[in-house]
Amino acid sequence: MLIVKKFGGTSVGNKERILNVAKRCIEDYQKGNDVVVVLSAMGKSTDELINMAKDINPTPSKRELDMLVTTGEQVSVSLMAMAMGSLGVPAISLNAFQVAMHTTHRYGNAQLKRIDTDRIRNELEQRKIVLVTGFQGIDKFDNVTTLGRGGSDTTAVALAAALNADACEIYTDVDGVYTADPRYVKKARKLDEITYDEMLDLASLGAGVLHNRSVEMAKKYGVQLVVRSSLNNNEGTIVREEVNMEKMLVSGVAADKNATRIAVIGLKDEPGIAFHLFNALAKYNINVDIILQSVGRNGTKDISFTVAEDEADEAVAIIQKSFPKSEYNKIDEEKDVAKISIVGAGMMTHPGVAASMFEALYDAGVNIKMISTSEIRVTVLIDEKYTERALNAVHDKFALGD
Amino acid sequence: MLIVKKFGGTSVGNKERILNVAKRCIEDYQKGNDVVVVLSAMGKSTDELINMAKDINPTPSKRELDMLVTTGEQVSVSLMAMAMGSLGVPAISLNAFQVAMHTTHRYGNAQLKRIDTDRIRNELEQRKIVLVTGFQGIDKFDNVTTLGRGGSDTTAVALAAALNADACEIYTDVDGVYTADPRYVKKARKLDEITYDEMLDLASLGAGVLHNRSVEMAKKYGVQLVVRSSLNNNEGTIVREEVNMEKMLVSGVAADKNATRIAVIGLKDEPGIAFHLFNALAKYNINVDIILQSVGRNGTKDISFTVAEDEADEAVAIIQKSFPKSEYNKIDEEKDVAKISIVGAGMMTHPGVAASMFEALYDAGVNIKMISTSEIRVTVLIDEKYTERALNAVHDKFALGD
Repeated sequence: MLIVKKFGGTSVGNKERILNVAKRCIEDYQKGNDVVVVLSAMGKSTDELINMAKDINPTPSKRELDMLVTTGEQVSVSLMAMAMGSLGVPAISLNAFQVAMHTTHRYGNAQLKRIDTDRIRNELEQRKIVLVTGFQGIDKFDNVTTLGRGGSDTTAVALAAALNADACEIYTDVDGVYTADPRYVKKARKLDEITYDEMLDLASLGAGVLHNRSVEMAKKYGVQLVVRSSLNNNEGTIVREEVNMEKMLVSGVAADKNATRIAVIGLKDEPGIAFHLFNALAKYNINVDIILQSVGRNGTKDISFTVAEDEADEAVAIIQKSFPKSEYNKIDEEKDVAKISIVGAGMMTHPGVAASMFEALYDAGVNIKMISTSEIRVTVLIDEKYTERALNAVHDKFALGD
Repeated sequence: MLIVKKFGGTSVGNKERILNVAKRCIEDYQKGNDVVVVLSAMGKSTDELINMAKDINPTPSKRELDMLVTTGEQVSVSLMAMAMGSLGVPAISLNAFQVAMHTTHRYGNAQLKRIDTDRIRNELEQRKIVLVTGFQGIDKFDNVTTLGRGGSDTTAVALAAALNADACEIYTDVDGVYTADPRYVKKARKLDEITYDEMLDLASLGAGVLHNRSVEMAKKYGVQLVVRSSLNNNEGTIVREEVNMEKMLVSGVAADKNATRIAVIGLKDEPGIAFHLFNALAKYNINVDIILQSVGRNGTKDISFTVAEDEADEAVAIIQKSFPKSEYNKIDEEKDVAKISIVGAGMMTHPGVAASMFEALYDAGVNIKMISTSEIRVTVLIDEKYTERALNAVHDKFALGD
């Protein structure tokens, strides 16, 4: 079997953890498997490097920032190779050049284009464990690039796809994917399986276990993922196209406190206004989530939408620049809001799921400010202070803890 | 003009020093010159990385150690590019892959074979300052290699040769090459010029300003070097084939305390004994310096030689392994010795220089244990405790301070 295993920064944060990861990988190796391991930078080292950079230049060149931070993963893989060597197992570290991992040249947020597999296959044939730097690539001019936050997951999935691996295991500091965040919902239960689409919605909605792009790539190439803990031997959660058991109506409930509601009040009720507004935001790469349009007084209309909290002020500034003051009444910003979402592949064929969610929130005394739905997801915006109460109410309603 | 400048680890040890170096380079750039800068890893970062490695594996793979430590220079060059950016000057960092710097595949001590200059020339044409990682290369399989201690000097000289640079400036924490170590000899004077050969002898004899291989390479390719301080604007010392002024009889006097005298007493006086002894040491890469053979008692002979202090114990062990106990009487090890050397291209044509040195030492009451000479060098071994006295006596004798 060819197994790709990915370990995050906390899993390789110090000597003991590095040796612990080494031992886990060696277990698979000694069973006769080919083992490829993708590593992130140790602990907080990426943040430390970024701080060094910002201290020297508050707005450093993105090319040079990528050149700087990619040293972090190279440190991880070389130390891991030494750790495996100390345990008597031959291992070799490879960086993005050596693999090579070809990407677009968008520094800081590059897309993987192609992975050469010759070198890796060659080393595997020599019965070495191959350690690959996560998160990084090279563009066609040999510049160093990074894949953006959580990019090591993407590296692992892409490698699994390119190598046609039999398994792709993503190790993290939680046991797997839960029906809700166990910090807020005591009855939260680990899922044995989940579909790519559900995982995609959960990831983008604040569950934060897997990087979104890695799930998209896994779906595209049909790579079956296992999300499991690097701290114990529990089974973890399998992410794949179809789950074997009868589709659950709702797989999980997620909260995202990183949301701000912006309302533009008293816009002229003319055609093209909404287009003009959201086009302006899109140009500046502001990601808009739930959108609500309602009729205002005196032939005007109000448009509300949510954005990530750290983009809210920029969004307001863009609107003020794009519309003359005479064209709207005022702009409201509400930061103390949270998104609560339920996700489930079974929803598609079962009407009434959204209604059950609203009922649960009504019974819990939680007011709904906005609503957005997709085929397998229902999201509502509520007061942030009710987050925990809402999560538990919805979790109970769908009996996710059973 | 195309100028190659090299700065060591202390010169880029923190934010202030990085900005200081950036400003120096920008001065040359703004005069219209093309500027290529070679950097070492920041401060003690290479040692810190090695300590991390040894903590995980006391005998780490040399390939992985190179993979690990080369991250240090990549951090330096990317931070320097950001520093220059903050000062409004376009700069680009390039690592050994990106240049590319091709070497043999002897990890930890690779030899530069060839440097591609297309990328560097291309960036210079775009009027960027080009920052190159010192000390590192890649072998023909894209493995990362290092050039050994002080290898960044070699990188700079090799780049200057490959780019046919008009100047190659090696910045260090001293003002240049001195007639003697100013810490021990108060009258020590900075030399304006010195020949490659003199510098080679001084470098190998403990002056430690320039890495030996870098001087050899400079000689081979006729690259004129300037050694100067990164802390002030003093002129520095020019290293070249011929010095302009009348050749000085003696250019400098150097001390090397890193020496141990080993004496093998009572060896059988048979042909081939010396060959057998030094061949065994050579096989284990033990560098032998001064050699003395003398006739012992009862038809035996004694062989004494010096080695670097940290190789002394290994050398003794090798001899014990190579000779049965019956073939010699005993092995003595003397660690408290120092080598004192005078170097001067003028010596070749002036007999009596060695005798003057011996006279100076005799007058100072310093006993000579061993002697070795070459065309432009005289070295004596003395008690380590007399190092300073010997240095001053010889320095005075040849009026080097005038």
